[in-house]
Amino acid sequence: MGKIRCAILGCGNVGSALVSQLAEGHDDIVKRTGVDIEIAGIAVKDVAKHRNTDVDRTLFTDDPFALVDDNSVDIVVELIGGMDPASRLIDMAIGKGKSVVSANKELLARRGSDLLSAAASAGVDLFYEAAVGGAIPVVRLLSESLAAERLYRVSGIVNGTTNFVLSSMSEEGIDYNEALEEAQRLGLAESDPSADVDGYDAAAKAAILAGISYRCDVRLDDVAHEGITKVRAEDVQYARQLGYVIKLLAVTELSRQGDTVPQVSVRVYPAMVPVSHPLASVRGAYNAVFIEGERCGEIMLYGQGAGGAPTASAVMGRSVDAAIKRLAGHRPYASMIPARESVLRAPRARVSPPSDLRCAWYINMDVRDKPGVLAAVAKVFGDNEVSIRSMEQVGMGGEARLVFVTHEAREGDIDQTLEELNGLGAVENIGGILRVFGDNRVR
Amino acid sequence: MGKIRCAILGCGNVGSALVSQLAEGHDDIVKRTGVDIEIAGIAVKDVAKHRNTDVDRTLFTDDPFALVDDNSVDIVVELIGGMDPASRLIDMAIGKGKSVVSANKELLARRGSDLLSAAASAGVDLFYEAAVGGAIPVVRLLSESLAAERLYRVSGIVNGTTNFVLSSMSEEGIDYNEALEEAQRLGLAESDPSADVDGYDAAAKAAILAGISYRCDVRLDDVAHEGITKVRAEDVQYARQLGYVIKLLAVTELSRQGDTVPQVSVRVYPAMVPVSHPLASVRGAYNAVFIEGERCGEIMLYGQGAGGAPTASAVMGRSVDAAIKRLAGHRPYASMIPARESVLRAPRARVSPPSDLRCAWYINMDVRDKPGVLAAVAKVFGDNEVSIRSMEQVGMGGEARLVFVTHEAREGDIDQTLEELNGLGAVENIGGILRVFGDNRVR
Repeated sequence: MGKIRCAILGCGNVGSALVSQLAEGHDDIVKRTGVDIEIAGIAVKDVAKHRNTDVDRTLFTDDPFALVDDNSVDIVVELIGGMDPASRLIDMAIGKGKSVVSANKELLARRGSDLLSAAASAGVDLFYEAAVGGAIPVVRLLSESLAAERLYRVSGIVNGTTNFVLSSMSEEGIDYNEALEEAQRLGLAESDPSADVDGYDAAAKAAILAGISYRCDVRLDDVAHEGITKVRAEDVQYARQLGYVIKLLAVTELSRQGDTVPQVSVRVYPAMVPVSHPLASVRGAYNAVFIEGERCGEIMLYGQGAGGAPTASAVMGRSVDAAIKRLAGHRPYASMIPARESVLRAPRARVSPPSDLRCAWYINMDVRDKPGVLAAVAKVFGDNEVSIRSMEQVGMGGEARLVFVTHEAREGDIDQTLEELNGLGAVENIGGILRVFGDNRVR
Repeated sequence: MGKIRCAILGCGNVGSALVSQLAEGHDDIVKRTGVDIEIAGIAVKDVAKHRNTDVDRTLFTDDPFALVDDNSVDIVVELIGGMDPASRLIDMAIGKGKSVVSANKELLARRGSDLLSAAASAGVDLFYEAAVGGAIPVVRLLSESLAAERLYRVSGIVNGTTNFVLSSMSEEGIDYNEALEEAQRLGLAESDPSADVDGYDAAAKAAILAGISYRCDVRLDDVAHEGITKVRAEDVQYARQLGYVIKLLAVTELSRQGDTVPQVSVRVYPAMVPVSHPLASVRGAYNAVFIEGERCGEIMLYGQGAGGAPTASAVMGRSVDAAIKRLAGHRPYASMIPARESVLRAPRARVSPPSDLRCAWYINMDVRDKPGVLAAVAKVFGDNEVSIRSMEQVGMGGEARLVFVTHEAREGDIDQTLEELNGLGAVENIGGILRVFGDNRVR
């Protein structure tokens, strides 16, 4: 029977769920896998706060560096989050030849490529399943099951808070502020919700997804992101009428494979998704990742994207992996290949300029209701190579509301169209502008 | 650079897609993983039939045993299907220390436990991703990502043909025969569709899913299965009115963990699924597996369950895995554990008696429209401990149709209820009887 000693850094929601899962699941894991995982220590900010748990109190320490430095520790599980000291602790762990399991999306989105290459050089595992998609094992699926696949688009609902808010707006007909307050009441949104609603959290996850999907180094700063704060109740209603739902999506695409360096686009934006698309049925705080590949076709993973127990379950799965690999003496294959540089370090991605990207758009504007206005508006679209797929006009007294859905168009052309429309005297206000996702499914 | 020689047995839809994926993807795979997979040979029934392909003709052979026996072959990919000779070929490959990738659901459902234990003893890998769910990597997810999870129900739409037929019936309002003919026209159903429509194909997949999910030996003969041939257009319509869709489900449940031997139920039946359930939105020929675990919550995988290219993509992913493991010298961990018998061989499952299983039911019957009939019918339900959740009565001239949905009830009690109802003079005909799935979700 192999014993593996595991240091846990951080004991918040996920950490405490992990500690109890390791305790409750201990005998099960031994029976199923032959691996005996023992907690070597739990690093927390304030040891006194953890006095009243069931956990052996001597395990707690406020010195994470000493814990990582302990030679008896085999695996370090980092659940602190943020850049510092998590970043230094992981560097130290890898330097000391320990395997690392981390749920730290920000760190992975900023330094993932460095860390992965350091881990491979050191012959240790660095797993980060829970950094994207919570309980959903999307990292393993992309990096192992689909290792030989040619993926061209990987998109997802990767932020449960915003999906809950948008689902509530759609299902209950309430506006953004009401829906956000409800999410806060239910503990699904922070009192300062900006990291979620501004798309920052989703952007970090998008960078990680793109890096795995296209085997390249994509960083948080590469990701253009928009949040959901401008999504209006009326856009949600128009979307429904047109057969769409609005979702905050992380969309990563392979624009061009290139000889050595893939060109990608990696973005986060609220989009209209056709109700028949599998992502449209992902409601509430759930997450999902939708994968499109040349051979595998469409694959979707769906599950709980947050929460202590589900996230801890993903961390636990990877901790057992890391433990098995250490006991079996399995070093990562990348570290064993001669001339391994290209496998060890993914090339830095080239990011496509946003203006070149193509998709369909929803544009909603109020115009003066008089003859010739529609013709003038339509001319602006046409002059800019934007072709209109559908238009609905809703009379509103002296004004009219025009709701357009375009065919696929270059984003640069859409920007120019909007600028010129804003300059038209007859256009009062351009209210809602959203990308349309998923009309161009391959199969 | 490591070279791995791969023998492919069978070159039908999946085999020929695999051969072309290995050729097209060769350089990609080398670049990403450092592994150079070379086709050592392709065993087919009739070599002459494969004259006009792009593939090097000298690779084809009609002697699969000689190919497996070739000492230069590292990995055997079995795509022949059925029991013999596939079973003997895999025994031979394992005996010779080769890793095996198989998409053979029937063989895995009948001899999976033996084969896995032989492979582990021999220190080789036996992968069978594509045997369930086609392109969806559900086997890896259950056996690796969720290795430490306590699963209690794993259910799925695992047969694309029947899902296409049921989706067409629901969406186009056509009857079973019309929908089946459409599927046959589109190449989605065989001219003899019985293996699909009788639930046999799904039963094999159910046995495999249960075996992995609950770490036990479940065999095809353990699976009670019903098909879709009795599903009537009117039941599909009533289902819609009640907020359900009808799906053919493979449902595996852990009834009781037990000390050493888990007790499970493994069944295939057409069921009413609430439209809000993620499985309800799986349409056409797609597959999905819905996983419920104590910690991970609900996870669903969705994708193409059949077709040459998608299935080959799953086989390819596992072939690359097997190749990497051989090059790295990674033997399966199970084969390295001292006192490993319990890990090497999953215990034979105990299967719950069907009469003990509980779920809600939909029952649709025609009765004489006269006073006292409903009371008599309701008394039969009550006498048998079956509690009614909803009832709708539809007048039809001298008859009335009663549409019941029950609360959860023991299947034995439902059987008794139906027998007694059939004995009631006022009951003309019990038309539709379906289980209701998914009302008892945990979260």
